[in-house]
Amino acid sequence: MEIDYKNIKVIGFDADDTLWVNETYFRDAEAEFCRLLSKYETPNKIDQELFKKEISNLPMYGYGVKAFVLSMVESALELSNYDIPNKTLEAILNIGKDMLKKPVELLDGVDVVLKTLSKKYRLILATKGDLLDQERKLEKSGLTDYFHHIEVLSDKKEDNYAKLLKHLDIHPSEFLMIGNSLKSDVLPLINIGAQAIHVPFHTTWAHEEVTDEDTNGKTYKTINTLKSLLKYF
Amino acid sequence: MEIDYKNIKVIGFDADDTLWVNETYFRDAEAEFCRLLSKYETPNKIDQELFKKEISNLPMYGYGVKAFVLSMVESALELSNYDIPNKTLEAILNIGKDMLKKPVELLDGVDVVLKTLSKKYRLILATKGDLLDQERKLEKSGLTDYFHHIEVLSDKKEDNYAKLLKHLDIHPSEFLMIGNSLKSDVLPLINIGAQAIHVPFHTTWAHEEVTDEDTNGKTYKTINTLKSLLKYF
Repeated sequence: MEIDYKNIKVIGFDADDTLWVNETYFRDAEAEFCRLLSKYETPNKIDQELFKKEISNLPMYGYGVKAFVLSMVESALELSNYDIPNKTLEAILNIGKDMLKKPVELLDGVDVVLKTLSKKYRLILATKGDLLDQERKLEKSGLTDYFHHIEVLSDKKEDNYAKLLKHLDIHPSEFLMIGNSLKSDVLPLINIGAQAIHVPFHTTWAHEEVTDEDTNGKTYKTINTLKSLLKYF
Repeated sequence: MEIDYKNIKVIGFDADDTLWVNETYFRDAEAEFCRLLSKYETPNKIDQELFKKEISNLPMYGYGVKAFVLSMVESALELSNYDIPNKTLEAILNIGKDMLKKPVELLDGVDVVLKTLSKKYRLILATKGDLLDQERKLEKSGLTDYFHHIEVLSDKKEDNYAKLLKHLDIHPSEFLMIGNSLKSDVLPLINIGAQAIHVPFHTTWAHEEVTDEDTNGKTYKTINTLKSLLKYF
């Protein structure tokens, strides 16, 4: 699909792993969780069970660090057969607190891209996760002034984007979304008649992976780095 | 302060304890938490320590059920001197899950008030807490169609409201906020030149209580029930 640049009024940017590093910190946290539970199970089993727990809690807890920590605590109780020491549980809570205090590591070219595009378009940050945590990261990033506002979505499905466009009072074709997740930042947009550009990140959470069937017959633009966006605008 | 009704373009409604019961469920959860820890401490001490923990975690975790559960788990570890059984921790996690599954109990007159006002004004739901949980409650409430959209704020201070008004593209005097918390729904609005009406709920979380000093010299309109709003519009 070719992007219709002239028609665009608002550009939505995904945040985690599009503007700054995020998934890497989750992978590190999972490795630490496996280490804490190594007495009870293999890393492989622990990873699998934690992932299952996150997915089963998703409808209730949603995305973000707090949901992740609650799922780690619950998994630890079950994987240890209710034998996990209190101090280990405290260490698990601290994994989450450390994640919430991480510095923000911008990806290459982010500043120049936002600076350039914010002069011509209204930019919004469209993310899922904890609002407070995303606000914290945006503030630490130094990018606040480029964005009109943050939109935190409880999920990034077609319905959520349709609501967002209604809220922005624009036609789908006037919205361009840019992000690293095909499942969350690209396919639902194309399905509702909006525009999208895919900028892959090297690490993708299993939940965000898509099958050939999902993308079957759908074409979308992929660029290797955010910086290369500037060639098109 | 008299409300300048003619100037209003957007009305913001707080959600918890303004449209539906919420604080009552937190009080019930705290009572259950005290019962689970009764072996270690008095209810009074447990209440105090949990409240301290919530306040100290607030800058990191924010508001909402997930933050509350994480603070209960951390308090349980500490109050028991790291001796709390795994099964009791599981029961604490389940307190939170039960809260997230509670039915939505509308307060008196909510439906008729929103129905009436939504014909003349753009209504938004302006709440703090978990986005996903608030969306769930709005959906269960049957009130979705009265609102243009939900705004979840990470906090309800002057800055947060100023950002919201910028995002809505309206002058402060064109915004009326209606809610049960003087601290969160009334005083910050008056301080930035917006309008506000206070509708008290019978139970207020200690963190939301205000001192005479906070309200000193500030006048605001208080109504006893949401229904009596209709007299003014």
